[in-house]
Amino acid sequence: MSELKNDRLLRALLRQPVDVTPVWMMRQAGRYLPEYRATREKAGSFMDLCQNPELACEVTLQPLDRFPLDAAILFSDILTVPDAMGLGLYFEEGEGPRFKHPVQDEAAVKALGIPDPEDDLGYVMDAVRTIRRELNGRVPLIGFAGSPWTLATYMVEGGSTKHFAKVKGMMFDRPDLMHELLTKTATAVTAYLNAQIAAGAQAVMIFDTWGGVLTPRDYREFSLAYMELILRGLTRESEGRKVPVILFTKGGGEWLEIMADTGCDALGLDWTSDIALARARVGGLVALQGNMDPCLLYASPQRIRQEVATILEGFGQGAGHVFNLGHGIHPNIDPERAGAFIEAVHELSAPYHP
Amino acid sequence: MSELKNDRLLRALLRQPVDVTPVWMMRQAGRYLPEYRATREKAGSFMDLCQNPELACEVTLQPLDRFPLDAAILFSDILTVPDAMGLGLYFEEGEGPRFKHPVQDEAAVKALGIPDPEDDLGYVMDAVRTIRRELNGRVPLIGFAGSPWTLATYMVEGGSTKHFAKVKGMMFDRPDLMHELLTKTATAVTAYLNAQIAAGAQAVMIFDTWGGVLTPRDYREFSLAYMELILRGLTRESEGRKVPVILFTKGGGEWLEIMADTGCDALGLDWTSDIALARARVGGLVALQGNMDPCLLYASPQRIRQEVATILEGFGQGAGHVFNLGHGIHPNIDPERAGAFIEAVHELSAPYHP
Repeated sequence: MSELKNDRLLRALLRQPVDVTPVWMMRQAGRYLPEYRATREKAGSFMDLCQNPELACEVTLQPLDRFPLDAAILFSDILTVPDAMGLGLYFEEGEGPRFKHPVQDEAAVKALGIPDPEDDLGYVMDAVRTIRRELNGRVPLIGFAGSPWTLATYMVEGGSTKHFAKVKGMMFDRPDLMHELLTKTATAVTAYLNAQIAAGAQAVMIFDTWGGVLTPRDYREFSLAYMELILRGLTRESEGRKVPVILFTKGGGEWLEIMADTGCDALGLDWTSDIALARARVGGLVALQGNMDPCLLYASPQRIRQEVATILEGFGQGAGHVFNLGHGIHPNIDPERAGAFIEAVHELSAPYHP
Repeated sequence: MSELKNDRLLRALLRQPVDVTPVWMMRQAGRYLPEYRATREKAGSFMDLCQNPELACEVTLQPLDRFPLDAAILFSDILTVPDAMGLGLYFEEGEGPRFKHPVQDEAAVKALGIPDPEDDLGYVMDAVRTIRRELNGRVPLIGFAGSPWTLATYMVEGGSTKHFAKVKGMMFDRPDLMHELLTKTATAVTAYLNAQIAAGAQAVMIFDTWGGVLTPRDYREFSLAYMELILRGLTRESEGRKVPVILFTKGGGEWLEIMADTGCDALGLDWTSDIALARARVGGLVALQGNMDPCLLYASPQRIRQEVATILEGFGQGAGHVFNLGHGIHPNIDPERAGAFIEAVHELSAPYHP
């Protein structure tokens, strides 16, 4: 593997000194870029794009060719894992993801397989290897997976949900079954992330998009516990470097302390948390990644710059901050605004790293 | 007016002793009840139902005839206020609310009128008077309104929104205009709630459904400040009793202290907060209303009972708790489960009020 030319991300995630605050954007390879939409059209469906390592590599690199980002993130989808567990993922245009075989009873939970990442999700590992080759050491590559609870919401509901009626119904009335489902999913996710690391991912992020819809009690028992289980099974060193792990529960602002206690290296923060308070609470244990409201990218470049300055000042001096949006970039953002954001982070952060 | 036979709600909101914990449910007059669906069909559209005081009274009382609830809440919609400000509210079946004239520029903000509640929203005041007459002192009647920020999201977007692009765009780039819009809306809401109190509402609740999509800085400046403005203008006594005010920001769990400092009497809590911690933080200043996950009503009566017990134990001994769901009851809940919930609160709470 070629030497890493820009290791700001890895250093900041491990709370080591950097020259400027590293920055990347969740969903930075995505629909807001015309070049992404062109590749997507060439590929066919969204899943065709995910399953084509060359094209997945192409879209992963597109934002790096436009902006001086400090990380690449694998282009994929969190639902590849349940798909490989036998649920039959498909996408209906404008309808979001769907599963042919949702997991709604004991028989379905028992029937779930644990995929072999190189066999059943080989297209993801091929994408990781292709991206690493093409990145040629420019920036590190982040791998990712969904949290077991987040995956379970789709697996039980059969797709996206507004009310979480079925998945919470199972959690409340059949906690034994829900624990079995989550244990299997955590096993699958652990193997999947370890395979990504073996294939070349240099940091990994666990997306707990739906942990924030739980009570604090249920969050601990049904979401956090399984992220902890994954953390205990992850490869934490590869190619002679530490592989930092980022945990992100959207809406988890009240639970930062228990999240930081899992043994992860960094927490993703959404924009509803104050980063100064978050640092005071957990900054001695973990790095923080975030947390500009993605809607700022609808505002003028001057206003974006002002918000970046506020967040940098909030975090303050020293190591342990990776700048990001508090959630994925929206599909209808003008790429120039994204550029203004990234530029502002690099320009305005230097004084915080004397 | 006839004497109030059950004043548990009013006492608990003012942190005065009660015999058992009072309970009501957000959206208790709603689609989960077959009798509601029948009245709704008779009325015509949703707005026809809101604008017909006799039928609005009928649906307000329906849940009280089924369950031993400790409060009635006016059947209406938060968007009646912007409608009366000239925006032209209409509902598209399955599409949610829409405005014919969204407020997206300076001219539209300047053109906004402040409605006279008895003239322009007389149908709401007539409903309040009719309900009070028909309640005949059984339980108190809660009036309500949306928070200025929450109303502004609909007013600027022209309806419901997922991304809040337009309203946040205006907030970020034209804060002056947003403040003007919010000031006018707060003035309208203050007059509207005071008219409800004059017509017979015995407590009022401000629903800040979308305050939780803001950063802590923007929440203070664009949502909380305007709820505070309303609080300063509200009639706090009527018919010789205090009129308690409940503030509810969905997703506001991190901001309870500053919410409690507004001078309100009680805070609504969604289910993502731990009620024991919430009481430790603000229980000396305000009562707490909440906070069972509405999805518990998909679970078995035994499981519902267990959750009620957990929340009662969390709040602990003494006054200042109104039991409720953490958000509105879902339309597809079995009414028997709602009944099991209400029964459990009364049965299990007696030991906490020795």
